[in-house]
Formats: sequence, structure tokens, C-alpha cells
Amino acid sequence: MIVEARKAKFTEPLKLTGGAVLPEFEIAYETYGTLNAARSNAVLVCHALNASHHVAGTYAGEPDNVGWWDNMVGPGKPLDTDRFFVIGNNYIGSCFGSTGPTSTNPATGRPWGADFPVVTVEDWVAAQSRLADRLGIARFAAVMGGSLGAMQALQWSISFPERLRHALVIAAAPRLSTQNIGFNEVARQAIVTDPDFHGGDFYAYGVIPRRGLRLARMLGHITYLSDDAMHEKFGRELLSGEHRFSLEVEFEIESYLRYQGDKFSERFDANTYLIMTKALDYFDPAGRHGAGDLSRALAGVRASFLVASFTSDWRFSPARSREIVKALLDNRLPVSYAEIDAPQGHDAFLMEHPDYQRTVASYLARVAEACA
Amino acid sequence: MIVEARKAKFTEPLKLTGGAVLPEFEIAYETYGTLNAARSNAVLVCHALNASHHVAGTYAGEPDNVGWWDNMVGPGKPLDTDRFFVIGNNYIGSCFGSTGPTSTNPATGRPWGADFPVVTVEDWVAAQSRLADRLGIARFAAVMGGSLGAMQALQWSISFPERLRHALVIAAAPRLSTQNIGFNEVARQAIVTDPDFHGGDFYAYGVIPRRGLRLARMLGHITYLSDDAMHEKFGRELLSGEHRFSLEVEFEIESYLRYQGDKFSERFDANTYLIMTKALDYFDPAGRHGAGDLSRALAGVRASFLVASFTSDWRFSPARSREIVKALLDNRLPVSYAEIDAPQGHDAFLMEHPDYQRTVASYLARVAEACA
Repeated sequence: MIVEARKAKFTEPLKLTGGAVLPEFEIAYETYGTLNAARSNAVLVCHALNASHHVAGTYAGEPDNVGWWDNMVGPGKPLDTDRFFVIGNNYIGSCFGSTGPTSTNPATGRPWGADFPVVTVEDWVAAQSRLADRLGIARFAAVMGGSLGAMQALQWSISFPERLRHALVIAAAPRLSTQNIGFNEVARQAIVTDPDFHGGDFYAYGVIPRRGLRLARMLGHITYLSDDAMHEKFGRELLSGEHRFSLEVEFEIESYLRYQGDKFSERFDANTYLIMTKALDYFDPAGRHGAGDLSRALAGVRASFLVASFTSDWRFSPARSREIVKALLDNRLPVSYAEIDAPQGHDAFLMEHPDYQRTVASYLARVAEACA
Repeated sequence: MIVEARKAKFTEPLKLTGGAVLPEFEIAYETYGTLNAARSNAVLVCHALNASHHVAGTYAGEPDNVGWWDNMVGPGKPLDTDRFFVIGNNYIGSCFGSTGPTSTNPATGRPWGADFPVVTVEDWVAAQSRLADRLGIARFAAVMGGSLGAMQALQWSISFPERLRHALVIAAAPRLSTQNIGFNEVARQAIVTDPDFHGGDFYAYGVIPRRGLRLARMLGHITYLSDDAMHEKFGRELLSGEHRFSLEVEFEIESYLRYQGDKFSERFDANTYLIMTKALDYFDPAGRHGAGDLSRALAGVRASFLVASFTSDWRFSPARSREIVKALLDNRLPVSYAEIDAPQGHDAFLMEHPDYQRTVASYLARVAEACA
């Protein structure tokens, strides 16, 4: 499937949750499949921290640049682009094409850098609603995503209850745990204490806070995998086959984490990392819409739900998904819940797993029938 | 209990596992209680990554400087200094008085720094055996410790089977998991990529790699606590009571971790952090003494064991302690196993908990009776 990235520009200012106003912004997006005459088959896909609007397929001439959810989205796949009109979008504050810290601040003519305002999941959903307006979609057949993307799907059901029929909430939590926030804070401190960060204005110095980004990614990577998955893949294997009794890289897991960190530091913006992790920390529908009670926060919701979790996910464990399910049931909302027995940890939501793919496919087949 | 730190100097070279030779070394230690006439009531206490020989009591004039296991060790406490002669010791490579990277390298007249050799748990046990010789202790009533200290107790039973009657192995693992090594590697990379590390020779530059040490400690701290314990203590509480939508410190957990990191960076040596975490990574009696089989590695062991774990410890989970228990049972060794229902996570081994304290007290009461 050859796909093409597009941009939509919005010139009406966007007032953000924190009070700041974004005077104008662009959203990078891609679409796959065809919007039907009734405009009833659109599905919005939302990405996690590190990803983009490039959800599926490849760009012409770039056969290796495959979308991050290509095993889920495409012709004949669980989110079937022969039946659905699928939209991938990049969030404002990100660094893959939507307006963010690396974009030019119209007020200064220089990159926004540290001045780019803190954004929330609610702000992203508000921005996405403008994209929906632009594409002529009054109501989505579904909004779906994993991890941070799943928080988006949940927020859609709260912010715009009439604008989606289904929400697919995969590997999510209704808000971060203290431990989750702690890990995010270590990653942020790694970035902001890197001397090359320059208070977020490193663009002007021609450097990037590579050390900080590298550490943030190494740490993140560990939390995305289960202990068992890491054991299966790397165990205690040594690069050279024997202990070297030195401080050089020695275990395969060390080498792998360094490689992942190096690669990430080349492609990801440090200010974006801060913004995305803060949005994760802030996400708290119970606190913002329900005085601490998630069931109350979901009182206005009208969508039907598929909630899915993975047994080995210790970052957003199944217990966190069950909190969402309970709050939905408290509101007598239709919800299917699947706890997938998968060994990979949090990253399982990105991987091929027959039970998982079949569960999503079955749910979406029902959604598609109702669109026709 | 007023206590006093001592040093023992050893001038016979110590050949290390990695092949290097330490020409001479000092061990900082403390003793509490009285060695009986039969010299049969000595207990060696071994510390974890961050601690020292200052196990119990306070120094004269320093009432706030309380030993790290003061709730466990002292008159009438589980390790009762009215009955036992207790020895706390600091490991070579550490930074609290024993020879380590901050000590003067006799070959150069400058701090060892990055040239201090990598040491292993086996090397520490070998060095401790010299201290035992010096103090006239042919056989310990017990060797005990938590975490890295527990690995020491286990290694004692392998290296010197005739020199201890009991080993108390608390919150241990028979070797690190891939995830454990991964976390250690992130901490090490935080230190070695800090521009103030200067390849380990930062002493000469009058700086310390504060940023790296701070991150290492923040990350370590998260893994020492359970998610539940962090939730209980900090939840999602905010310093100012409301979201500030900025990148400033905001959640209490962020503030706490930064404080812990700052404090740690003032008192801990960066080279020591590298050495201690490498020793953890290397520890693998099954691999070194049993061709991968822990039961085989313990074939020569003669001690009796108390193995204790904590239900909420996800760093060294109860399952890891049960691996040790199984290998001991395979060798028909006497072993008591206690899985303590405690919410605090790995750090529970340092905390007061009635079941835990009673378990250790009961076990040691039996040990004491046999000394008399």
C-alpha cells in the first residue's frame, strides 16, 4: 500500500488547557481507504509517544519506511482499509510534521523550542476535531489507539460524545501511576540536565541533547518490555561469549539498549519528549471531569468500547484497563474487554499476535457492518 | 549504642576474579557486641549497593548518623548484640572507607579513579575472609545481608563452606535478570556520558558527575519501591495543589526523586557506582560454579539457610528467592523460607515489619543457642 503524507493548516487560534493560545497550527496526517457516501466509515488512529501519522503502508520510493501499525491497518487487515476510511494523525507538539517545538514560532521567526506550550490529551483531541471538520467527518465510526493513543480514544468519548460510535482503547491506563510519573521524570531530567539542551533552545546552538534523549529512550525501552520478553530475547548473553571484567559494553542487552538509544536520539526532538511525557502525566479524566471518580467522568459518554490489555504489560497493567471497564459498566455503556495473554509487555500492542489481531478484527467487522 | 569505625590494612596482594591484582587494601569495619571465648558467635553483615560498614548505632557526637540496619542489629534486636559479635564491613571498590577508586593508587600517587579494577562478589568474600582471619574468626555463626549483601552471604557458603554455619539470604536473586542488567546499564550510561565524568578521572578536574549520579539514583529509587508503595506515599499529589501546565517540578514524586538524587550525588562516588553495579551484573554462581545449574553450583555448600523475600519486591521477586530455595533443597541443605507479605518493594528488607523482624529474630535465636 503506497501512501502519502498530507498537512492541514488551521488558522483559527487554539486555546490550550494550560491557558496558552496557539495562534495557528498544522496537523500532518495520512488517509487510507475511501470515505463512503454516508461519511460513516471514518476511523481515527492515534499514536503513542514515539510514533507519527505514518500508521500503515509505505511512501513511494521508500519501501523500508513502513507505518508503525502496518500489521493492524491495511487491505484485509483487522482495521480493513477496504471497508474503512482510516486517518493517521501526528499530534501538535510532536516532531514529525505537525506544529511543534521544531516549527517556526510566528511571533519570533525562530523555532518555538522551550516556548512551545505544554499541551494535553484534551488539546490533541480538540485539534483532531478540527481535522475531522476539515475532512467533513461529523462522526467517526471509531477512534482507536494503543497506550497514549488509547488515552486519546477515551478522551474523544468524553470531549465529543456524539462524534464517535466506538472507541478502541488498547494497553491504556485511566491515568499514570506514581511509578509511571517517576520514570517519565527520570527521562525528562536526563534531557534537561544534558548540557546540550540549553534550556530547550539547543536549535540555535547547532547541537542536540543526544545524551539525554539516549538515556530517556533506553529507560523507556525497558519499561515497554516485560522481564520475560527481555530474558527470552537477550538473557544474560555476552557479546564476546565471556566476561571481560571491564566497564566496556559486555552483555547483549547493554548493546541493544545503547543502539536503540542512539537511533532514537537521531530522530526525536528533545522538547517533544518533554511535552509528550507531560501530556501523559497530566492525563486524568477522573480528576478533570469527575472530581476523582472515573465513573462520574464518563457519565456523558455515548460510545461503545473495546478495551484490550496484555497480561505481561507492567507499565499499564491489565488492572488499569479493568478500572476503565468498571467505570464504563457503571455507566451501562456497551464494553467488550479482552485481556490478551501475550509475553511481550506494553509493546505487545504493536506486535502481531493471533488472539489480539482476531479480537480487533471481529470487533471492527461488527462496526463495519453498521456503517454499510 | 555508640560505635566506632575501624580500618584493617592488608598488605598481601589480592588477586581478583578479572585477573587484576590489588597490591594492598584496607577494609573499613565496625564491630558490635563481644566475641565469646569459643569465638563461635561472630556474625558478618554485608551491605547493599549504597551502604557501608556503619550497620548499627551512632558515632559519638553524631546522633543523627544512624547505621543503615539499626532496626535489625543491636541489644535485644533480631541480630542481638548481647548474644552475637557482629561485624559490619565496607567493600573494596566502595567509597566509605575501604580501598576504592577514591583511594590513592600506590603506583601513581593519585586516586585510582577509572583504573580501579572491576571487582566481583567473590572478590569481596575473599577480602572479607582476610578480615575474618585478622579478627581470629575461623567460622562465622552466620553471614547475612539483603540484596547485594545477600548475594555475599550466598557466595560465602560457596567460597568457604566450612567457615559459616548459617547464611541469611534476604531479598536476593541468584543472578540478575536481563531487566535488572538493563536498569544498571542505564544508570551507568548516565554516569559515563556526563561530561563531568572525564573517563572516570574527574577527581583531577575538581568536579563530580553530579547529573549522572543523580539520574542513577532517581532510577534506582523507583526500582527499590513497589508501585503501590509509591502510590501510598505520593499518589498524584501536586506540590502547589494544582496543575501548572509547565515543565517545572509539579508532582510530589518528581520533587522527592530529585531530592533523593541530589542528596545521593553529594555523598556517593561515581566510579564506585559503576563497580558495584558491575559486580551485581556479574554475580552468577550457577554460571561460574555449576555450568549454568544453580543446584550443581551449591553442591559443596554446608551451611543452613534462612531465605526471605518480600511479596511486593519486583526487582528481586519472591520467584527469584524460590530458585535459591529449590537449589538448596536439591542439595538436601536445611533451609527455612519466608515470603513476607510487605508492601514496600525491594527496600522492605531495610524497614521495620513485625513478621520480618520476628522471622529473623526466631531464626537467629536458634543460631545463638547453638553458639552458647
